[in-house]
Amino acid sequence: MKKLVITIRYDGTNYHGWQVQDNVITVQQTFQDAVEKVFQSRLDVVGCSRTDAGVHANMYVLSLDTDMDIDCKGVIAALNTKLPKDIAVIDCKVGENDFHPRYSCVSKEYIYKLYNGKIRDPFLANYSYFYKYPIDADYLNEQAQAFVGTYDYSGFCSVKSKVMNTVRTVKSFSVARDGDMVIFKVEADGFLYNMVRIMVETLLFVSEGKIKKDTLKDIILSKDRKKAGKTAPPQGLYLNKVNYQS
Amino acid sequence: MKKLVITIRYDGTNYHGWQVQDNVITVQQTFQDAVEKVFQSRLDVVGCSRTDAGVHANMYVLSLDTDMDIDCKGVIAALNTKLPKDIAVIDCKVGENDFHPRYSCVSKEYIYKLYNGKIRDPFLANYSYFYKYPIDADYLNEQAQAFVGTYDYSGFCSVKSKVMNTVRTVKSFSVARDGDMVIFKVEADGFLYNMVRIMVETLLFVSEGKIKKDTLKDIILSKDRKKAGKTAPPQGLYLNKVNYQS
Repeated sequence: MKKLVITIRYDGTNYHGWQVQDNVITVQQTFQDAVEKVFQSRLDVVGCSRTDAGVHANMYVLSLDTDMDIDCKGVIAALNTKLPKDIAVIDCKVGENDFHPRYSCVSKEYIYKLYNGKIRDPFLANYSYFYKYPIDADYLNEQAQAFVGTYDYSGFCSVKSKVMNTVRTVKSFSVARDGDMVIFKVEADGFLYNMVRIMVETLLFVSEGKIKKDTLKDIILSKDRKKAGKTAPPQGLYLNKVNYQS
Repeated sequence: MKKLVITIRYDGTNYHGWQVQDNVITVQQTFQDAVEKVFQSRLDVVGCSRTDAGVHANMYVLSLDTDMDIDCKGVIAALNTKLPKDIAVIDCKVGENDFHPRYSCVSKEYIYKLYNGKIRDPFLANYSYFYKYPIDADYLNEQAQAFVGTYDYSGFCSVKSKVMNTVRTVKSFSVARDGDMVIFKVEADGFLYNMVRIMVETLLFVSEGKIKKDTLKDIILSKDRKKAGKTAPPQGLYLNKVNYQS
């Protein structure tokens, strides 16, 4: 039995997230359909993370076990032929037997793209959050440093979540402007449900003065979802990197 | 009566081109729906060009006549509220009464984006043509100069077209590489049906050696559709500029 570790990218616009669900099209189900055509059997595909509807992935790691004798280059080419054009395999290698895309992961990085132009751009509608009010990226970057550290992040988690352990370590958080685009980048050992999207909207509340300067740490410590900002829309969010111990 | 001259941009992915047709969604129809909501009446919207299904526009000029007393800034904001997110109004001004988006136009510029990376990019699938064979953009740029001039371009026109005058003046044609993207840019006084897409695919035939070096001029003069290349797919094509006498 070989464990194939496969890296994909996907445009999440037309998917209800990663995980298989009834009556909607998901990336996992679409990927399993392609795997079935290539491997002639419906193999279990294990992913590194759930993602929400409309959320994208620049890098998403998954694994599957097979006893077929195929080489990795051939797997990439064959899967890319069977996958729809909004999902692409970019890497495939043979991993250790105990590798698990989710549990072996030491950290993940998300980016959030906010389009800060004067008029919305039709070509960015599915790939960023259009926000037309002025943003001082340097100021938000300074304020966002309050997120770095190990905290109980239950105030930055959708109330729909039922996860038990809500402590996460945020390793870095940056906000930077690139022309009309403002990019939020955050790395953590793990993320709660909607955590990045709530962090982004909370920073926008700081930008708008709805949340006072230098109070982010208090809001985190309050563990009160109502004190944080709303949830930024999904189309600006990208799973950007998944890191494993090398 | 005021003539409003409106500039829009659109992502053509989800549209069957500009022009109203039965049973399919088009940009013109969608725009007229928004106009009806803003102006409280179904006004005729005159466009600068037809575009094909899946083709995009960075700049598209249209006009409509109204006797409502509204200011241009208000029109931009109101239309952008009513339009779907893949169409945006970027400019509006009052034009001369005899202005016509199509007949007053002195030239148009199209660009064609070809993604020349090693593996297809899911985020570019609807916005470029994925072509993985090596391309020497400088060589194609040199060969493409044969297109510049005034010719009967009937060999570079879809056989479906019924246009009478097939003479067009191509003012410039360039091919340039920007990383993994190869950009074809062409300006002409007008274009025949599928003309740019046939020019691009003909240059790819030159790249692949299916058409011999320095024979493009002979192919144009032959007026034989079969001697030119096939038709490149629509999603790489963008109406980029529409020029009027100032």
